[in-house]
Amino acid sequence: MAQTPSIPKGTRDYSPDIMVKRNYIFDTIKSVFKLYGYQPLETPAMENLSTLMGKYGEEGDKLLFKILNSGDFLAQVPENELLERNSIRLTNKISEKGLRYDLTVPFARFVVQHQSELTFPFKRYQIQPVWRADRPQKGRYREFYQCDVDVVGSDSLLHEVELIQMVDEVYRRLHINVRLLINNRKILAGIAETIGHPDKLTDITVAIDKMDKIGGDAVNAELREKGIDETAIEKLQPILNLQGSNNEKLERLQGILQNSPTGLKGIEELTTVFNYLEGLSIGTEVKLDLTLARGLSYYTGAIFEVKALDVQIGSITGGGRYDDLTGIFGLKNMSGVGISFGADRIFDVMQQLNLFPEDNKATTQILFVNFGAKEERYCLPLMQQLRAAGINTEIYPEPAKMKKQMGYADKKGIPFVALVGETEMQENKIALKNMATGEQQNITLAQAVEILKK
Amino acid sequence: MAQTPSIPKGTRDYSPDIMVKRNYIFDTIKSVFKLYGYQPLETPAMENLSTLMGKYGEEGDKLLFKILNSGDFLAQVPENELLERNSIRLTNKISEKGLRYDLTVPFARFVVQHQSELTFPFKRYQIQPVWRADRPQKGRYREFYQCDVDVVGSDSLLHEVELIQMVDEVYRRLHINVRLLINNRKILAGIAETIGHPDKLTDITVAIDKMDKIGGDAVNAELREKGIDETAIEKLQPILNLQGSNNEKLERLQGILQNSPTGLKGIEELTTVFNYLEGLSIGTEVKLDLTLARGLSYYTGAIFEVKALDVQIGSITGGGRYDDLTGIFGLKNMSGVGISFGADRIFDVMQQLNLFPEDNKATTQILFVNFGAKEERYCLPLMQQLRAAGINTEIYPEPAKMKKQMGYADKKGIPFVALVGETEMQENKIALKNMATGEQQNITLAQAVEILKK
Repeated sequence: MAQTPSIPKGTRDYSPDIMVKRNYIFDTIKSVFKLYGYQPLETPAMENLSTLMGKYGEEGDKLLFKILNSGDFLAQVPENELLERNSIRLTNKISEKGLRYDLTVPFARFVVQHQSELTFPFKRYQIQPVWRADRPQKGRYREFYQCDVDVVGSDSLLHEVELIQMVDEVYRRLHINVRLLINNRKILAGIAETIGHPDKLTDITVAIDKMDKIGGDAVNAELREKGIDETAIEKLQPILNLQGSNNEKLERLQGILQNSPTGLKGIEELTTVFNYLEGLSIGTEVKLDLTLARGLSYYTGAIFEVKALDVQIGSITGGGRYDDLTGIFGLKNMSGVGISFGADRIFDVMQQLNLFPEDNKATTQILFVNFGAKEERYCLPLMQQLRAAGINTEIYPEPAKMKKQMGYADKKGIPFVALVGETEMQENKIALKNMATGEQQNITLAQAVEILKK
Repeated sequence: MAQTPSIPKGTRDYSPDIMVKRNYIFDTIKSVFKLYGYQPLETPAMENLSTLMGKYGEEGDKLLFKILNSGDFLAQVPENELLERNSIRLTNKISEKGLRYDLTVPFARFVVQHQSELTFPFKRYQIQPVWRADRPQKGRYREFYQCDVDVVGSDSLLHEVELIQMVDEVYRRLHINVRLLINNRKILAGIAETIGHPDKLTDITVAIDKMDKIGGDAVNAELREKGIDETAIEKLQPILNLQGSNNEKLERLQGILQNSPTGLKGIEELTTVFNYLEGLSIGTEVKLDLTLARGLSYYTGAIFEVKALDVQIGSITGGGRYDDLTGIFGLKNMSGVGISFGADRIFDVMQQLNLFPEDNKATTQILFVNFGAKEERYCLPLMQQLRAAGINTEIYPEPAKMKKQMGYADKKGIPFVALVGETEMQENKIALKNMATGEQQNITLAQAVEILKK
């Protein structure tokens, strides 16, 4: 007797009901991407470890899933290395490939590898699973989909604007109320410069980031701990407590950061973006948030984050501009900007708020009850006509008890059932039963098509 | 200076132009699956090795990509096993997971694992990559997509019929001329029985399978070599040389196999399927082919294979009925039938015959030339209106030289370019240039929408 089989922890099967909902999200997002000229790209699940290692920090290297070399992988390993029992060092000898950890590094690899064939600016979206050997826990998986959209090869701020438009349009279509937070790495650098600690950019940002959660006093305590002097902390206070509209904040920052060319450049960039947005009808609130940092070491300009307003769930979309995406693979001066939609979290938000539409095209629309061989032969051509009219049609595969056949329709969520027996065959009619109301009517095939098309 | 990055051999990047074509194939196939009540399923890329091992034969076990356990994978390995240098045995100690090798075993695993939640007959399709550590060569990859459709939990021959209908509809929509070959494992068993060699079913089938290629004499020689006696070979001749329509062949077989209940059952099954098909308008030729065997050890009833008529490429779709799909995981009596569409080969056929449609929605439909900051601000709201009308719209991100902007439109295959400068802004018009004809006209936005919607 075989054991009930299972799947590796942290992975999931997506059953049909889940798939239909996930596809709804992905299809919506893709349709918006296309409206802005972004095109699909897919890269292999496996990348050479030389492509992946060192790109996600030491911790990231450990979280890569590594693939054992095929064949006699031990043949080339010297005996002393075997006995050394150094798993990390041995990995290099017995594994050359790993599963992709995100979509950004494979994208950068693709751009560098195919630079001569691509048209720049190159706009691509990519929706594929990634794998991380993280400890699985609620909401954290070892296999999950990322949904990235990026443009590379242009530093035009029009791209920041169109990404904001795309966020606005995606969440309008999904009926999720969101707020888009925006910041600029150059402003953060300007702040660090202005208070006299350009080297402490990360510490300062991490502390500022906690403002909402722990309050000003605790933030200041943390800054002191990190070696920021009192004068600097003093100078930081008006920035931490900046109030008002985006433009008011930027105006005040203009004064505060007046001696930092980098900071002023950041202000100018954001001002330009806000100006463009003014002429457009954006339903989403776009809010300057100086505490927004996200992957600071990576971004060089705009930083984005999107929060759902009606559910406590953290960020559901994020991204920013990076001036050196492809530098890791030797291609310099390739500025890009992009965002990533968090499919799992968007799914959870929509589930919680009951936002998934009743998709009557996702399942079968009409089930023919099976009364036996003669009726089967009569029904098959009718079913073919329904399908030609675009209606998802099934027949129960055997003349089982009515209860069983109805139960199948019910469990599969099929809205209509056709009963075609002796009488209906003689009258050239269909008895069409509405499973929701229980209502039944004798009609022609053409009439059935009309009802089902609604 | 970093080295130009590459991808593991046998894997591929799917660039946007390829993706658009692949999506066209998959979308067509999916839309047909849905018409017949099949729903999407996805399973994890990684399965436990205990799920995968032993399911594909000894050779298959070797071709599985195995994932190195995370962390200090050597910690639990005894020293003597390390020094033994037995790569296969060590694999069991340092790897617990593998990449899926096909979609059938994960599907069987899913059905058994979730049997209590599923509604049977369970109809699912699954389109996902699989991985095999095969030696890469022309047309053979280490990562490739499979596109499977199966129904499990019913032995009704109506499913054989609907699979044939689906094949017919898919290839009608893709404009590929095909022939569908059909056979039945029970007939092959009946033949082996009738000629007195029920134990040599595989040898006989393998030999018969070569009939077309090597001719009758060579087939007979091979049979002799395999230990089939002369009387049996004599008896086989009328079967090998069966001529006529499907029904004529089945009628003659009925006589030949009269003493084999299994053989007669197979004939009855095929007759039933052909009878159903007669009442339906199927454009595809469905041909009984007794030499068709495909994965014989696996199928128990119908066997299908689809060949493209206008290209030499082998089978582009295949499948059959298996009565014991889930037995390997302890769930008995779960009959199923399914087929698999070969995405790579279908792609090659369509490419070769130039069957991919001009998809004017796949790329940007209109590019706004960038004349500078003032024009950008004027154009952005116009672009928003075009997108609201469902038109894929871009603006070149910076006021580059006209030649460069036109080159971008050209390379990306964008059919229309909008020129909106000082004059057009004053007149509230758009100069719309058709990139194919070179024709240019001054029109309103509404008129542009009409042209682009065509």
